[in-house]
Amino acid sequence: MIKLDLRKILADNVKAYRNAKGLSQEELADECGLHRTYIGSVERCERNVTLGTLELLAQALKTTVPELLTRKTPSG
Amino acid sequence: MIKLDLRKILADNVKAYRNAKGLSQEELADECGLHRTYIGSVERCERNVTLGTLELLAQALKTTVPELLTRKTPSG
Repeated sequence: MIKLDLRKILADNVKAYRNAKGLSQEELADECGLHRTYIGSVERCERNVTLGTLELLAQALKTTVPELLTRKTPSG
Repeated sequence: MIKLDLRKILADNVKAYRNAKGLSQEELADECGLHRTYIGSVERCERNVTLGTLELLAQALKTTVPELLTRKTPSG
């Protein structure tokens, strides 16, 4: 349950940062050197991602791993 | 290289939090339900740990995953 919660935070943040940069899932995957379907599976909370992948995502999204794993307050 | 850097931050923090709680590597492993040699391998930067394991470590060490992945300034 708690694991899924952290996956959800990551999913929401990847989606939000990706949209803010105007990237499709496939474009972000390309930036990271990941398979094109991988980002979708992260955003559906399906992946128990590793430290290495978190770092690739953070770099591509120009943020940090701790930021990607911190819940953002809903805007508005 | 960058991946190893993040592994190093995690290793240093696990060690610091574990020592602050007076736990051996084996005791922390027991708390997390991990194999007794696992904590040692994390502290030697040998593991590409997953989100699920990060969460187990954070819970056992009474901290958060973002904290575990944030470099602490050296004390003193």
